[in-house]
Amino acid sequence: MPVTTIEWVDDHIRMIDQTKLPGELIHLKIKEIDILAEAIKSLRVRGAPAIGIAGAFGIVLESQKFAGESKTSFFAMLEKTTTYLNATRPTAINLWWALNRMKTLGDNHKDKSINEIKALLKQEALNIWEDDRKICRSLAEHGAEIIHDGYNILTHCNTGALATADYGTALGVVFTAHAQGKKVHVYADETRPLLQGARLNTWELMHEGIDVTLICDNTAGVVMQKNQVDCAIVGADRIAANGDAANKIGTYSVAVLCKHHNIPFYIAAPYSTIDFNTKSGKEIPIEERSPDEVTNGFGRRTAPENTKVFSPAFDVTPHELIEGIITENGIIRPPYDINLKKYATS
Amino acid sequence: MPVTTIEWVDDHIRMIDQTKLPGELIHLKIKEIDILAEAIKSLRVRGAPAIGIAGAFGIVLESQKFAGESKTSFFAMLEKTTTYLNATRPTAINLWWALNRMKTLGDNHKDKSINEIKALLKQEALNIWEDDRKICRSLAEHGAEIIHDGYNILTHCNTGALATADYGTALGVVFTAHAQGKKVHVYADETRPLLQGARLNTWELMHEGIDVTLICDNTAGVVMQKNQVDCAIVGADRIAANGDAANKIGTYSVAVLCKHHNIPFYIAAPYSTIDFNTKSGKEIPIEERSPDEVTNGFGRRTAPENTKVFSPAFDVTPHELIEGIITENGIIRPPYDINLKKYATS
Repeated sequence: MPVTTIEWVDDHIRMIDQTKLPGELIHLKIKEIDILAEAIKSLRVRGAPAIGIAGAFGIVLESQKFAGESKTSFFAMLEKTTTYLNATRPTAINLWWALNRMKTLGDNHKDKSINEIKALLKQEALNIWEDDRKICRSLAEHGAEIIHDGYNILTHCNTGALATADYGTALGVVFTAHAQGKKVHVYADETRPLLQGARLNTWELMHEGIDVTLICDNTAGVVMQKNQVDCAIVGADRIAANGDAANKIGTYSVAVLCKHHNIPFYIAAPYSTIDFNTKSGKEIPIEERSPDEVTNGFGRRTAPENTKVFSPAFDVTPHELIEGIITENGIIRPPYDINLKKYATS
Repeated sequence: MPVTTIEWVDDHIRMIDQTKLPGELIHLKIKEIDILAEAIKSLRVRGAPAIGIAGAFGIVLESQKFAGESKTSFFAMLEKTTTYLNATRPTAINLWWALNRMKTLGDNHKDKSINEIKALLKQEALNIWEDDRKICRSLAEHGAEIIHDGYNILTHCNTGALATADYGTALGVVFTAHAQGKKVHVYADETRPLLQGARLNTWELMHEGIDVTLICDNTAGVVMQKNQVDCAIVGADRIAANGDAANKIGTYSVAVLCKHHNIPFYIAAPYSTIDFNTKSGKEIPIEERSPDEVTNGFGRRTAPENTKVFSPAFDVTPHELIEGIITENGIIRPPYDINLKKYATS
């Protein structure tokens, strides 16, 4: 059973504090919107789908607390909360998508009473959570088709249960292939600076009894050079209309290395990660993280004081390096500018 | 003035403990061969040329201590010490080269008295140290030709004064270009797992007043994608007769990324780094490091207990990815199987 990284319990959000893994498995009980915003910003909850769910639950938190009687005030509160939460992390489209889905739901029921709208919003957030569970399973089923017995799969960052409501995206594909009885082995990039691969992917894979070898990001090239990688599968935080995909920093390098070694490079992400309003990767805003995450990340300072650091949280892989985009609606192949739209469910 | 990372003082080796940088600048006073071996293994002294010097000084340490009168015992001690030190790190040819130079010197003076041989060995070690200083300067002069005003240079690992007797190899090129009045900016890969780029390259560059930006290894691709890198220059621990070059893990990925972005990728190393007895990179032994350097490197455990880790200390860049090899005898261009030999000094 995969861990449940985030869920709604009674009147609060219950989530694993991912910054404490793998050392400690601590659940946070979040009742305040500011605490939630901090948790998103500092990556206590992370992974594009999980952030979307966190955003939706945040709307529920604030709406449940609303004690006024003015519908205008209620909708102003919704608007404010949406803007506030959306600003926590700029790159992942899932956050905007989930918040927008909540907002639209509210807008569509403006004639209802505040209490009715509160109930509808809560139900919608639970639906987003439940939908993500189904999406993960369906995406993983499609993705498992590309995994053959004996495959060595390279992963970057964490894309498992911790990043979603259920099974994960790229890692869900691995879990499903494993459950199908295929022998698989994973090379997990540690994923600097915050080591989601080292801390989280290895933890999830070992938990499921899947053979995993941790490598530094700079070692991916060597294992490819030694013909020890059959494919790479990573997640995505936003996919542009032309197929360019933003994902955790370092993904682009993995894609280039795959290209050089003729190794297929796949993206696995919910269909909602595709942002048709973003024409190409150039338009995707890239969050820059604090230098401290690089120079002072794990208990000890590892660069001189005042060292200048460039630390983007994400990079953009151009569509021509992507073999396929694995979604819950199927595996989408190039040309993406034509095919991405074809996979929409009506 | 560059720092002096290693030198012979009176009856001992004085060296900077590089594992303590950039936090503390501590000098070790080494009088025991076992302490020296530990210092090499644990990278208190590192950088291929500096390791070679450390090895030569190690021979001096043991020979100075020799109190017997039997020449057979003296040469047996030399043989034993050479084998012992050579085993500390298998990849860098400089260690073997320096030890072999010491051994040959001894062998060539077997007719002399033990005291005379002791004096000759000490002088030879000082010559190796002094030669490396000259080599660094000459190599840097040649290398600076490829650096134009306004250049952005990508570096990997540390290749400066800390890695050599004087000015460094790849970083020496940067220092010289800077001294020539060229405006340069360096992107320093942090270089996991031991962060020689973050801890040492930034420290040396900032010390010299050169503009440097620290990046995670996985960010090199992005700065290249943004056209912010004009060339990459790295060191080497061993260069095969066909031009394949072993260097710090991650170098191969940098070379592939350079190829993809049409960025010239240079190696800078003393001519003695070329090992004509090694036909190609496939024959170069690659040291594997302890998993702990990856999983427990910064003062806090960052992967689950018992995580399997693949952590080679070096990788091999095939010659076809190398634009030129900068040596004290000039910049050697392909075809390396022919041209490497041409640059030998008679």
